[in-house]
Amino acid sequence: MDDKLMLMIPGPTPVPEQVLLAMAKHPIGHRSGDFSKVIAEVTEGLKWLHQTQNDLLILASSGTGAMEAGIINFLSSGDRVLVGTNGKFGDRWAQVCEAYSLNVTRISAEWGKPLDPEEFRTQLEADTDKQIKAVIVTHSETSAGVLNDVETINRHVKAHGALIMVDAVTSLGATTVPIDEWGLDVVASGSQKGYMLPPGLGFVAVSPKAWEAYPHANLPRFYLDLGKYRKEAAKNSHPFTPPVNMFFGLQVALKMMQKEGLENIFARHQRQMNATRAAMRALNLPLLAPDYAASPAITSVAPVGVEAEQIRSVMRKQFDIALAGGQDHLKGKIFRVGHLGFVSDRDILTALGALEATLQKLNYDFTPGAGVSAAAKVLTA
Amino acid sequence: MDDKLMLMIPGPTPVPEQVLLAMAKHPIGHRSGDFSKVIAEVTEGLKWLHQTQNDLLILASSGTGAMEAGIINFLSSGDRVLVGTNGKFGDRWAQVCEAYSLNVTRISAEWGKPLDPEEFRTQLEADTDKQIKAVIVTHSETSAGVLNDVETINRHVKAHGALIMVDAVTSLGATTVPIDEWGLDVVASGSQKGYMLPPGLGFVAVSPKAWEAYPHANLPRFYLDLGKYRKEAAKNSHPFTPPVNMFFGLQVALKMMQKEGLENIFARHQRQMNATRAAMRALNLPLLAPDYAASPAITSVAPVGVEAEQIRSVMRKQFDIALAGGQDHLKGKIFRVGHLGFVSDRDILTALGALEATLQKLNYDFTPGAGVSAAAKVLTA
Repeated sequence: MDDKLMLMIPGPTPVPEQVLLAMAKHPIGHRSGDFSKVIAEVTEGLKWLHQTQNDLLILASSGTGAMEAGIINFLSSGDRVLVGTNGKFGDRWAQVCEAYSLNVTRISAEWGKPLDPEEFRTQLEADTDKQIKAVIVTHSETSAGVLNDVETINRHVKAHGALIMVDAVTSLGATTVPIDEWGLDVVASGSQKGYMLPPGLGFVAVSPKAWEAYPHANLPRFYLDLGKYRKEAAKNSHPFTPPVNMFFGLQVALKMMQKEGLENIFARHQRQMNATRAAMRALNLPLLAPDYAASPAITSVAPVGVEAEQIRSVMRKQFDIALAGGQDHLKGKIFRVGHLGFVSDRDILTALGALEATLQKLNYDFTPGAGVSAAAKVLTA
Repeated sequence: MDDKLMLMIPGPTPVPEQVLLAMAKHPIGHRSGDFSKVIAEVTEGLKWLHQTQNDLLILASSGTGAMEAGIINFLSSGDRVLVGTNGKFGDRWAQVCEAYSLNVTRISAEWGKPLDPEEFRTQLEADTDKQIKAVIVTHSETSAGVLNDVETINRHVKAHGALIMVDAVTSLGATTVPIDEWGLDVVASGSQKGYMLPPGLGFVAVSPKAWEAYPHANLPRFYLDLGKYRKEAAKNSHPFTPPVNMFFGLQVALKMMQKEGLENIFARHQRQMNATRAAMRALNLPLLAPDYAASPAITSVAPVGVEAEQIRSVMRKQFDIALAGGQDHLKGKIFRVGHLGFVSDRDILTALGALEATLQKLNYDFTPGAGVSAAAKVLTA
């Protein structure tokens, strides 16, 4: 049906009506006092969500733009960096680093497996002359549905002294990212994920330690120069013309999140992840990621006895539910269920009900009702 | 009054209700077939507006991001460039070039005066060994309200063979920018200007000649790497997550523009500029830019006998009309009236009526009614 689409992908995610309507307000001048108040308010809200007192900078960009800014403002050509790669986004940050002539060492894991913190420890301990300037890790690897153990990796980074830069694009708002408690130096994310907003804004949180590296960092930049954003943010202003209507939406989304509360938001994502995984198990659909490293934002499933792309097609065409497919070498081999942002328990039951109907249509052999009831059990526990 | 603001600044500009409501639609997946159709449609519409068959690439960025992308994808470190600077934005492009270690020669004019094409000719003719790789010019210099003679400058560039890169941020949609007819290599703009959209999208049109320089251009880039955008645009796709709701708005805005027609749109801007300038003359308020180089997007006024900032303050507080102030060294010395994008003849009369009331309140000596009637004469001619 037209206009009946339900998004269960890892971004764009569903957007609340009151956020959409806020975005439909007439724009105001970005240099006005009224807009300064909006900047001040959303910056405070973002700091709350990021659990930090660090600078919180807002870019008109995708998450990639935000992450690139986080990398290139604090490093110089030739600097050695460790990049964790266990999916498309880890690969991307390695490519960004290489585009800027950084000396990249990849620490890899198979897609679907988490990065091994011990490998980071080994590399960092071997670096006795402190050539490694930064460690770059994707927290929730969206392409595989894996949550990497940033907390442990970060402990090894802290023992070494390098900067830690985290892609929190699909973890922020879905699970705790306690920036100040852990001491994360750069944390980047994008609006179309846990923020309950459409795409269009990127966010970067920057620690004082990262700023210490800024004056010496020689990679060229202008639009992505975070020093410009910091200077203007101190005056509740913006160095360029910000997407004012997205800010209006962000204002409302942050208020909704504050009303729900951080603990409740994280518990909701955890519960919905557990319900989704329980359902897949009950349907004998293999999960790509192990329980101990499952992303609370997205569940990747590698079906056997039924084609992933056929599942996606029926779900889309008959039930108006968008699921994500696999990327790169996993294309056609997995489907991914997003449970990130403005997703209710009802949505999980809906998606799983439609998935069961789809599996019936595709003559997959399973016990009808098993998935939905397994999820219901988790959701109502 | 709350929610009664009328924008007469050079961006953000007023946005039609149907565009705002399109932006309030639920997002869809950016990798879906439905979104590919949106990309295809808006790209065709943008090519129509840009009068070009060149590649038309859409970025999640401000106009500055788009212009930086236009510069850094086709040049290498140390390349010599001529940059026209007669206002804040010309200065900015010179700074972008310097941030990327280009060898910048500025060709300057006083703010309020147009760039002299002869100075470009002299520099280009003297460059017999073709060290100048690009000439960068701001078409409508927003900070001063000046329209530079890109057509003539471009003729000198063509005789030389360098690339011409044009900031058309406040000229596109306000006056003709015949990219193919003139042979402009890179043309950048932003959504919050003539496009009748909020800020959030940047546009870059790239000629085949510019693409020839792309493989050898060694400036680092990733998010602003236009090659990635070109590759995906060929498949009606996008390399990153695009702001899908802004695309929905763009779809509607382009349809409205196509209905009005290019000639009518340009005539409207010209008429409103002429009316605004006639009014300022009738009020003895000195215009910063001469008639032969006046921007159809914005009129800058340097009042004598009354303070620019007092005018802006009364206009804002009592009449809910936002005018722009001066930037940098013109701060406090000028005010600027935007007449760009979704502005009707009625809006011009409204703004001028409020301006006269403001001048009365500030005890400025003038003939009441003179400004409005001078504008009415132009508008109804």
